[in-house]
Amino acid sequence: MKKFINPPRNNWKKLIARPIISSQEIKSVLEEIFQTVKKNGDMALKKYTKKFDQVNLGDIFVKHKEITNSKNLISNRLKEAINIAKLNIEVFHKAQKIKPINVTTSIGVNCWQEKRPIEKIGLYIPGGTAPLFSTILMLAIPAKIAGCKEIVLCTPPNREGKIPPVVLYTANLCGITKIYKVGGIQAIAALTFGTETIPRVYKIFGPGNQYVTAAKQFATFHNVAIDMPAGPSELLIAADDSAIPSYIASDLLSQAEHGPDSQVILVTTNLDLIDFVIDEIKKQINLLPRREIMKQAIANSRMIYFDSNQNAVEFINAYAPEHYMICMKNEEYYLREIENAGSVFIGNYSPESAGDYASGTNHILPTNGYAKQYSGLNIDSFLKQMSFQKISVKGIKNIGPAIEVMASAEGLDAHKNAVSLRLNDLKNE
Amino acid sequence: MKKFINPPRNNWKKLIARPIISSQEIKSVLEEIFQTVKKNGDMALKKYTKKFDQVNLGDIFVKHKEITNSKNLISNRLKEAINIAKLNIEVFHKAQKIKPINVTTSIGVNCWQEKRPIEKIGLYIPGGTAPLFSTILMLAIPAKIAGCKEIVLCTPPNREGKIPPVVLYTANLCGITKIYKVGGIQAIAALTFGTETIPRVYKIFGPGNQYVTAAKQFATFHNVAIDMPAGPSELLIAADDSAIPSYIASDLLSQAEHGPDSQVILVTTNLDLIDFVIDEIKKQINLLPRREIMKQAIANSRMIYFDSNQNAVEFINAYAPEHYMICMKNEEYYLREIENAGSVFIGNYSPESAGDYASGTNHILPTNGYAKQYSGLNIDSFLKQMSFQKISVKGIKNIGPAIEVMASAEGLDAHKNAVSLRLNDLKNE
Repeated sequence: MKKFINPPRNNWKKLIARPIISSQEIKSVLEEIFQTVKKNGDMALKKYTKKFDQVNLGDIFVKHKEITNSKNLISNRLKEAINIAKLNIEVFHKAQKIKPINVTTSIGVNCWQEKRPIEKIGLYIPGGTAPLFSTILMLAIPAKIAGCKEIVLCTPPNREGKIPPVVLYTANLCGITKIYKVGGIQAIAALTFGTETIPRVYKIFGPGNQYVTAAKQFATFHNVAIDMPAGPSELLIAADDSAIPSYIASDLLSQAEHGPDSQVILVTTNLDLIDFVIDEIKKQINLLPRREIMKQAIANSRMIYFDSNQNAVEFINAYAPEHYMICMKNEEYYLREIENAGSVFIGNYSPESAGDYASGTNHILPTNGYAKQYSGLNIDSFLKQMSFQKISVKGIKNIGPAIEVMASAEGLDAHKNAVSLRLNDLKNE
Repeated sequence: MKKFINPPRNNWKKLIARPIISSQEIKSVLEEIFQTVKKNGDMALKKYTKKFDQVNLGDIFVKHKEITNSKNLISNRLKEAINIAKLNIEVFHKAQKIKPINVTTSIGVNCWQEKRPIEKIGLYIPGGTAPLFSTILMLAIPAKIAGCKEIVLCTPPNREGKIPPVVLYTANLCGITKIYKVGGIQAIAALTFGTETIPRVYKIFGPGNQYVTAAKQFATFHNVAIDMPAGPSELLIAADDSAIPSYIASDLLSQAEHGPDSQVILVTTNLDLIDFVIDEIKKQINLLPRREIMKQAIANSRMIYFDSNQNAVEFINAYAPEHYMICMKNEEYYLREIENAGSVFIGNYSPESAGDYASGTNHILPTNGYAKQYSGLNIDSFLKQMSFQKISVKGIKNIGPAIEVMASAEGLDAHKNAVSLRLNDLKNE
């Protein structure tokens, strides 16, 4: 844990820096895998799954029976919990659906904006030590609400060539039945180009390790969109003496258990709080299973004291945290002034875990300072906006002359001509 | 002009293909220019401006006097036209601003979503034969409505080292006064890293040639977001015998004058219309100044007859046009069924020129089939969505147990612990 007291501004650049992820050495691997999957399709997927996941894949597609059978392998308690989370996520994301916007900009000129779903999308769910079924809720629920027609899911198989039942159960509960046992760069390549089994999609969503992240960025050069670039997860807590040190410690630790490169930052206007929190971390950490991971992340954590609220908030905006927790007496100030954050947690009873699972907000959020320019996942991520205009005779007579003058000034006479022809026909109307 | 009658589906892939843009050879140039601008700042900008624009730049920054003086160099007619366009664009984009969304997802769990402006943005305006002041309206007006704090504009100087007065006038009218005489890859690199003169921004907007487009995509690897990948402009018209052939021809020609690689497509359910339109194109084209450019684009144009509305619409959705014009008796069907299009123009008096300049819709739109997954520019392009949650004691008691179960099932015990600690404290409340 590193402590800083009123760090001067010229030191902030270092304090807001994230761990550097080098994607240079991944590049040549990317090109090779993308080209091979494009050329050899399913055969390439099996080859790379054997190479990277040490699994001989039979079927790439998860069979219907395996999906429906998954419900028998999950406890009722877990099913109930997933259901509570699902309902809350649905309520929050349904509220984000807005009606078309329709205005008459000038007499006779009717313009409107409608959002329509992206037809084909791909969801990526990482494998690894734990089955991240909560991420399926965060991706599939808004996709369904948006009305995406074709939703496919890729996730790497475990050593037995299987997908964890809770992943299958959650996907099925959300109405996703096209599930493929492919992970890593090869999964992203398959979603980009399509193979005999996996359909090509228009946009790819979901978190992943640095290989998956680099592959998603690479895919954007091949006519595919992605949700956002992803990096290691982060939490910044702004707290004063109204905060409860054991809670703050538990929240910092919950962030730290994601990985050794997780970022954990405490900003406080109460100098004593730093030591209280450090004591609590020491108490709690040894009771938790992932302590070795947490210790590495906590070692790099930053505890920063500012004697002014303004400096504190300016630092927070410069950092642009993925998760931002406010436990401050004057929470209104910290809320009003925040410009860059993914998801905000307010008060002592709003732990980050709540947003990760069940409050209803989305847990796929911009990391690495991207909260400065990217939104967290929301219903709009699955829609695209289209604009419409219907101009009447009166309308074109009204705005036509302005169009002629502007087109002419831009040297685009055919643009002008398209209006002049119409205005000429309407001279006597 | 190429005619196709009921083309079979296996032929569609060819018919929806765009001209291929190779970005391979640009890559090494990109890396060099980005690295040099990062290292040498303004000095590098001057070096590349001399090399690519053949101009010895004195000041990079356009002086205040030059900006305010521009209003004396523009005709009143043009000023009035720009003003009409500005008002319409403002009405349409202001209507897109929505209030925060606030819901109680479960008892005691309050979640909301707010959109806040991206603080620092860069606008790119291409140079070239004509001053594209209309694009400034399309970028600067929504940026101002969104509330972006720092808006800077880069545009290449002409051979005299100057920016056209109408560009300066329009920028100033929209409240943009940080204008830099830099174009091409070096401008994008400057906006990405910042130099002594040009501030670094979080998101870069605006069209450009293939070098600028490649540079924008390259910038996304350096913590900058971009509006969208851009390609040559396109128009697809769906028309039947209710369309007026001379209007259709004029609209196809207006699209064709953008460049030899512009895409121009007519989809019709009336076979005769094709020849009527071809005759009209032949009549009109020779009267227009940019006929040599248009002839090349028209030579590659496609005139496609379908005997069913359903096939026609499915083809249009497969093509995903940037601009989509509907001159059909059953326009309702073509409107309802369109899934992928940037901006839609309905009826005989809604030429594409109207949307390019003055109807109020935005003219920065997804090309190259990207209408399948990208929105045209709109107010949301300048905002990012943040989510908030405030959970009460009652709220955490309500959803806490579900969070514990889910965190535990994902093997994230520190996540669980953050909730358990709180629930334990609240046992007797």
